Amino acid sequence: MRARLARYLPCLEWARQYDREAAGKDGLAALIVTLMLIPQSLAYAMLAGLPPVTGLYASILPLLAYAVFGTSRSLAVGPVAVVSLMSAAALGPLFVAGSAEYAGAAMLLALLSGAMLLLMGLLRLGFLANFLSHPVISGFISASGLLIALGQLKHILGIRVDGENAVELLHGLLLGLPASHLPTLAVGGGCLLLLLLFRNWLSSGLQALGCSPRLAGNLAKAGPVIALLASVLVVSLLGLADAGVRVVGRIPTGLPAFSLPPLDLALAVQLLPAALLISLIGFVESVSVAQTLAAKRRQHIEPNQELLALGSANIASALSGGFPVTGGFSRSVVNFDAGAQTPLAGALSALGIALTLLFFTPLFHNLPQAVLAATIIVAVLGLVDFGALKRTWHYSRQDAAAMTATMLGVLLIGVETGILLGVGLSLLLFLWRTSQPHIAVVGQLPGSEHFRNVERFAVVQSASVLSIRVDESLYFPNARYLEERIAVLVSQHPQAEQLVLMCSGVNLIDASALDSLETINLRLRTAGIQLHLSEVKGPVMDQLKRSGFLEHLGGRVFISQFEALAELDPQTTRRAIAQRGNGVSATLSHQSLLKENDNEKRS
Amino acid sequence: MRARLARYLPCLEWARQYDREAAGKDGLAALIVTLMLIPQSLAYAMLAGLPPVTGLYASILPLLAYAVFGTSRSLAVGPVAVVSLMSAAALGPLFVAGSAEYAGAAMLLALLSGAMLLLMGLLRLGFLANFLSHPVISGFISASGLLIALGQLKHILGIRVDGENAVELLHGLLLGLPASHLPTLAVGGGCLLLLLLFRNWLSSGLQALGCSPRLAGNLAKAGPVIALLASVLVVSLLGLADAGVRVVGRIPTGLPAFSLPPLDLALAVQLLPAALLISLIGFVESVSVAQTLAAKRRQHIEPNQELLALGSANIASALSGGFPVTGGFSRSVVNFDAGAQTPLAGALSALGIALTLLFFTPLFHNLPQAVLAATIIVAVLGLVDFGALKRTWHYSRQDAAAMTATMLGVLLIGVETGILLGVGLSLLLFLWRTSQPHIAVVGQLPGSEHFRNVERFAVVQSASVLSIRVDESLYFPNARYLEERIAVLVSQHPQAEQLVLMCSGVNLIDASALDSLETINLRLRTAGIQLHLSEVKGPVMDQLKRSGFLEHLGGRVFISQFEALAELDPQTTRRAIAQRGNGVSATLSHQSLLKENDNEKRS
Repeated sequence: MRARLARYLPCLEWARQYDREAAGKDGLAALIVTLMLIPQSLAYAMLAGLPPVTGLYASILPLLAYAVFGTSRSLAVGPVAVVSLMSAAALGPLFVAGSAEYAGAAMLLALLSGAMLLLMGLLRLGFLANFLSHPVISGFISASGLLIALGQLKHILGIRVDGENAVELLHGLLLGLPASHLPTLAVGGGCLLLLLLFRNWLSSGLQALGCSPRLAGNLAKAGPVIALLASVLVVSLLGLADAGVRVVGRIPTGLPAFSLPPLDLALAVQLLPAALLISLIGFVESVSVAQTLAAKRRQHIEPNQELLALGSANIASALSGGFPVTGGFSRSVVNFDAGAQTPLAGALSALGIALTLLFFTPLFHNLPQAVLAATIIVAVLGLVDFGALKRTWHYSRQDAAAMTATMLGVLLIGVETGILLGVGLSLLLFLWRTSQPHIAVVGQLPGSEHFRNVERFAVVQSASVLSIRVDESLYFPNARYLEERIAVLVSQHPQAEQLVLMCSGVNLIDASALDSLETINLRLRTAGIQLHLSEVKGPVMDQLKRSGFLEHLGGRVFISQFEALAELDPQTTRRAIAQRGNGVSATLSHQSLLKENDNEKRS
Repeated sequence: MRARLARYLPCLEWARQYDREAAGKDGLAALIVTLMLIPQSLAYAMLAGLPPVTGLYASILPLLAYAVFGTSRSLAVGPVAVVSLMSAAALGPLFVAGSAEYAGAAMLLALLSGAMLLLMGLLRLGFLANFLSHPVISGFISASGLLIALGQLKHILGIRVDGENAVELLHGLLLGLPASHLPTLAVGGGCLLLLLLFRNWLSSGLQALGCSPRLAGNLAKAGPVIALLASVLVVSLLGLADAGVRVVGRIPTGLPAFSLPPLDLALAVQLLPAALLISLIGFVESVSVAQTLAAKRRQHIEPNQELLALGSANIASALSGGFPVTGGFSRSVVNFDAGAQTPLAGALSALGIALTLLFFTPLFHNLPQAVLAATIIVAVLGLVDFGALKRTWHYSRQDAAAMTATMLGVLLIGVETGILLGVGLSLLLFLWRTSQPHIAVVGQLPGSEHFRNVERFAVVQSASVLSIRVDESLYFPNARYLEERIAVLVSQHPQAEQLVLMCSGVNLIDASALDSLETINLRLRTAGIQLHLSEVKGPVMDQLKRSGFLEHLGGRVFISQFEALAELDPQTTRRAIAQRGNGVSATLSHQSLLKENDNEKRS
């Protein structure tokens, strides 16, 4: 009972060992993360099409919920850029941004997303996230970052641009450029420059002035808050709000009230696909960063418990006037670097935001929207990594194709289309690849019991026994291909009297492939050739035993290719094994056995 | 040039060797097939929602086109039940059955389907048909047969029933039963009985009367025509048409005129998905029967050329007032049994249908629709094979699930939904299965260089070297699973200093899995364990060389698991190999090495 409780409430574990030292570290980390979170939460709310205060609302209860249920010691939960963009993409076509209906729908989206995460956690469906391959996620994040940055440029220029994709946004920006509002551009552009300088130089500059590296790093994290306060000061002193610089305006003071999202079934059904994608992307992003950080300190992340924790964080957000949240990359890294020891740091950040809501919101009245846009741009440009495309292309054309499709889909059509395109293409390319599997004729490596491809290695082949290795599970996409390839290989080896199908690479034989094997067996028999199998794996063998195939099979099932050849053509096998040097210790190097020009051979 | 021409015109090959004997056999086969084709073509046109004469139209030019381009010597092309049902399902929601618009759309559907087949043939995309797994096709054909039979019962009862799926049809039939039109029921029911009797008893009855088996078999094929002519005679003599028995009515005399389908782009786009499914199903059905028959006479079928042949047959159908056609199962088998030697038999059948259109159509004026319905029911009941579900269930639950989904989808929702459901579920189940691959700890079989699962075989294990075999390609659905499983296995073997990943079952490592391998490598290194690979296949090795992984890898890539162990733990390996009996000839039987109760073990 207690163990079960501890599994679902990881906070019970760390709370028992909590001490003053951990509290000090958590407190410092919480302070730094809070200073980062204030501008980011306001900005991501704007990005999601919501009033800035909802960003603060989404940064209190969700953090407390994660502190109770989460397994990561360093993850910083709250509004993040990509999920905010996805929320805007889901809600934008349905309601007017900034309206009460829009805000209600955002709460409903968080509720749905939270419910879905909880459900996946309870049903242990975390593996679903695996269908988002690394190249697809990487392409999605890069393209989303670029799209977000493009979308924010209008705030810097002080113009109105409507557009869902990169082409529309670029077109609108170019058309609107001459109409730029110069005071806005001055404030926004200046802030953007300042933030970029802070990011790149503040830490080393402070160190040059004699700060310790640790202190300098922590102070540099406060850069955005400094820029923000400076801009408020400039706008207030120069009266720029009256000159047309758009500011955040009045932010209501006080903690969020408990409230239910509108429980509109038709709307819920409409939002369901978006909520599913937001859940999956949010989960993957969050777990990736949590696992990376946990590995550095030998801690462990429990993905299914993370689903429950993120689910409750989103439900908490929905019930306190927020919108979808997840664990963010940049704030988590800052939290970790600042020395956060337990999720209590997150809870303390929530306290910081609550204090801000109670006392400091009037400070942000004159905060220019252009400054929030600059904060967003600087944050998301760190997500863009086009080098990954080059690296992926170098390793695998198929993966690079899926990545490119995702990027183009996100940039040219939309975030949801992009990710669906990427996942769909990954699956199709995999199926296409397995539908034409690599099939090799193999022979015995001299002096060993091992069999390898005759085209790559200098091996000994039997004249009467044809050894064929199939490098793929046998299932419906390649069932007929196998029939055709074996017919061709048999016609190329007219002396063969036996055929041994080496099944070391066959991890599954489905009903379609079983039919094909029956056909192959019959055809070979009429051609006077006996079919044998070798190295059939346990689970596959179990299944074959349940069918009638083994009774119809003319030949036998050998435990290894070597045993098959030793039985069917002992003379050749003995000759090959005799080429061994001085017994076991004479290990064979991969290179020495390769035929020439192996690298060029692909078949 | 000539070889290329011969590849695209297979008729050039058989035409050169054509002789009188072949002509005689082809002529007899053509006569029998024509007698079968007349009622079937009228009936399938009715099933497709078209005037009966279009069935005859679709049985002339398509047969000639196939005779020129087809590679099967025995395939009988023309209207078939399943494709007619699919055509009706595609057109029914758009137009009123029997209207000119409906007939035009049917021609367009044939044109689209033909164009798609041609395109697939030219792009060598025949492998696409492989995604229809055997269980899905089998389930689809059985369920379609049942649905067709249900849909025809209303004609036998002489009532009106509207319905798209089995539930609606059954409901309508039950409601309408009391209103059955008795004369229609008498004619239709009598004919149905007669046809079933003919099918089961005519051949043996004639043999009992002294006919040779061959003659008796051929005469029995004419059963449907006899039933049909008898019914015309009865209806005409008793004036049943005036008593309310619905008859075919006037069939226009004369050959079909050349005509273009309505080239309506919006309609074409609407029909495209249906045309694609019809093409794929038609192709699969046709190639399966062609290959089965070809194998019996050691002939060869060229699938990509078949695509071209079936494509031109459908385009020929579209241009002569027909509807989608393909190679049918029952008529092809009859054609083969009757001794057809070349596709000229098909061309002669086309001549028979042309003569029928020119001279005999008045004969069919009084043909009752109930008799056509009986013809269809008897033909499609031969397609229903529910035993296949039981056999598939016994072999593989996943395949049986896909088959059941297809059947239920076809019966309860519709033909297209059913097949998409089946294909989708096949793919999902495959992906789900590969997302949690079988991972085994392996050890050395005593007296051999072979390594097998420690849970199934009595093997020798090294204490310091952990050998793990992964039975699946490493790609995005299982990348993270691998990380987790290896972490668990390592924690279960605290003494291990080396880990050898045996990659004999790994046919692919994609970019996501490469990231996971990097992670595993790093984690193992920090835990003081060196990672090695063994039995990496050539294509996978080529790809790994293009990444930086091999440089980061702490350990080595061994050519075989045995070489790895011989190097890393020579003592244990030498001890294991010393258990060999008298050298090579002492082959090991699969059974003797199995641990007890292996059959119960699945892991």
